[in-house]
Amino acid sequence: MHKQLVILGSTGSIGTQTLDIVRQHPDRFGVYALTANTSVELLARQAREFHPAAVCIADETQYERLRDTLSDTDIKVWAGSDSITHVVQAAEADVVVAAMVGFAGLRPTIAAIEAGKTIALANKETLVVAGAIIEAMSRQYHAPIIPVDSEHSAIFQSIAGEAPDSVEKILLTASGGPFRTFTKEQLQTVTAEQALRHPNWQMGAKITIDSATMMNKGFEVIEAKWLFGVGYDQIEVLVHPQSIVHSAVQFRDGAVKAQLGTPDMRLPILYALTYPERVQSALPRIDWTATTSLTFEQADTERFPCLRLAYDAIARGGNMPCVLNAANEVANLAFREGRCTFTGISDVIERTMQKAAYIPTPSLDDLYASDTEARKTACALL
Amino acid sequence: MHKQLVILGSTGSIGTQTLDIVRQHPDRFGVYALTANTSVELLARQAREFHPAAVCIADETQYERLRDTLSDTDIKVWAGSDSITHVVQAAEADVVVAAMVGFAGLRPTIAAIEAGKTIALANKETLVVAGAIIEAMSRQYHAPIIPVDSEHSAIFQSIAGEAPDSVEKILLTASGGPFRTFTKEQLQTVTAEQALRHPNWQMGAKITIDSATMMNKGFEVIEAKWLFGVGYDQIEVLVHPQSIVHSAVQFRDGAVKAQLGTPDMRLPILYALTYPERVQSALPRIDWTATTSLTFEQADTERFPCLRLAYDAIARGGNMPCVLNAANEVANLAFREGRCTFTGISDVIERTMQKAAYIPTPSLDDLYASDTEARKTACALL
Repeated sequence: MHKQLVILGSTGSIGTQTLDIVRQHPDRFGVYALTANTSVELLARQAREFHPAAVCIADETQYERLRDTLSDTDIKVWAGSDSITHVVQAAEADVVVAAMVGFAGLRPTIAAIEAGKTIALANKETLVVAGAIIEAMSRQYHAPIIPVDSEHSAIFQSIAGEAPDSVEKILLTASGGPFRTFTKEQLQTVTAEQALRHPNWQMGAKITIDSATMMNKGFEVIEAKWLFGVGYDQIEVLVHPQSIVHSAVQFRDGAVKAQLGTPDMRLPILYALTYPERVQSALPRIDWTATTSLTFEQADTERFPCLRLAYDAIARGGNMPCVLNAANEVANLAFREGRCTFTGISDVIERTMQKAAYIPTPSLDDLYASDTEARKTACALL
Repeated sequence: MHKQLVILGSTGSIGTQTLDIVRQHPDRFGVYALTANTSVELLARQAREFHPAAVCIADETQYERLRDTLSDTDIKVWAGSDSITHVVQAAEADVVVAAMVGFAGLRPTIAAIEAGKTIALANKETLVVAGAIIEAMSRQYHAPIIPVDSEHSAIFQSIAGEAPDSVEKILLTASGGPFRTFTKEQLQTVTAEQALRHPNWQMGAKITIDSATMMNKGFEVIEAKWLFGVGYDQIEVLVHPQSIVHSAVQFRDGAVKAQLGTPDMRLPILYALTYPERVQSALPRIDWTATTSLTFEQADTERFPCLRLAYDAIARGGNMPCVLNAANEVANLAFREGRCTFTGISDVIERTMQKAAYIPTPSLDDLYASDTEARKTACALL
């Protein structure tokens, strides 16, 4: 079957790798639409190569430049976030790849769910912020959510063919990031430059910092709760520096199933796009003769308090994960811009959570309000 | 559902562990019949504990002793191999656990398949010797074969929920046995006593020696071919000394799925008995904080030629795996009795295979004849 894709955030890390998959499998995938935030030149180049029906640029000030660049094509050019919300609902679209970074990914993802599209979900904030709402909507609109994240894809693959109630525990692996072996004291003086050198994965800057603080893993705990319908206390983070075991599931009889692979995001992307099929691919295989030993250790929430804060947020529920996420976006950016220390990130988040008004069953509007409020609080705390 | 089991070889290693599972899950399993080769006292004790309808002892000279020991019960007592073939076909039996050791396990397993029973297969020789016939019969009589071996169970679990044609390669793990790090020269003088000290698994003596020569792994390659419908060249043996990854499957998109567990045979036994369900069990879980690093290396067919002979046998097909097995049974016993050196085992097997008349499509009778002939040849070579 030839699937038509809408790729939200096509110029980012996941977006470009998704297009690499499309390039390798022209018989299986077509591109219906591409969207980007501000990277107008790359978006235009992608449009020329993949010939989508439409491209959208969120930043409206870039509209004329994009339109002029593509004026010799019949590709429709739109701008503004409303156009993105519109394009995901097109009848021609089969799969929406939600690869926008940050809270901005929520609205178009919801629009795609309402249109009953299959969602290949790479945007973390969708489930972190609004997991309860999204999970209910996915069922209501028969819009399956297939995770693109390598960890959640591994869990999804490990659960395939198993009864959902047979899951005892999810073992979410974490590389541990660039500061895995750093002491608490050393962490106080690390720089953004150091944090951006991730040992195993090439990712965007925001996610790479989240990986260094382990907030990224905390978000994944929250996402796993919603994706797989388990309690947060059934999710254990296991530090596995080699990033070969992408995650595992322990079943109630004691068996553990894991999915392994090279650290290459194209594999979970391909799986999400072809599920429930697996297609032949030329992606790199694990070379077992070159594989160093695989090791595992417990996650340290003392040195990486962001992970503890994420567990706290999902344990409290309601709008707390939304507050966690908003405060983290602010603190993460501040750290990258040199306005906050590494250990200051978790301090800002923790204090923002303490100050936030708790809403047990927030609506989407409540979440938008909580997000705005938490960002203000976090900025004030910096 | 309460399943009634017939356990062939109940006094052996797999048999006693199967009864341990029954003991832990009395709500799920009953014992319809127990059979043993010669261990009359243990068989009688098992009968008193599990109250089967019938017990069979293969060794007819033990009949009266067994009958007298159980004379105060209403348990039927039978003797001789025909009685075993009979009992597996009883209408009351749901699952036949084929845990007899050696070629003797073939006949009753075939009888169970003909009666359409679910086969929990632990007897290696069934598929090694008569894989083509058994595989065809299993389909014809709708008698599913669920592997009990930890490696094949791991593969079976990894394939669950996946399309059969998506399997690219089977990664069969091997502990490497007690002589994994021995040089060719050292192997010339190793004793049966040394070989019987397996690092990870408690098993019967015959299988422990087969594990030391890696013939056990060779047999598993042949079994995997029949169980999973792949070519022998799609099966790769990977030495993994920690025996935590019980085996893995590489799919055509590049993903690898593995099943992991502690080295405890009760887990694959339980899975085989409850498949497709997984039931709650108190079996030990992997302790990740105590897990040493997991390592992998290529199998060395130079130092362990039995593995190469097994690949040769399945590559030639026909009666060659039967000849391989027969010669191995003779040489394995001779080694245990001090009549053959460790390196002599593969020599005897190789020369027996060279002398054997090749039959491309053997009938069961041909296989019995090949077996007898190969044993004679191997004995003469010793």
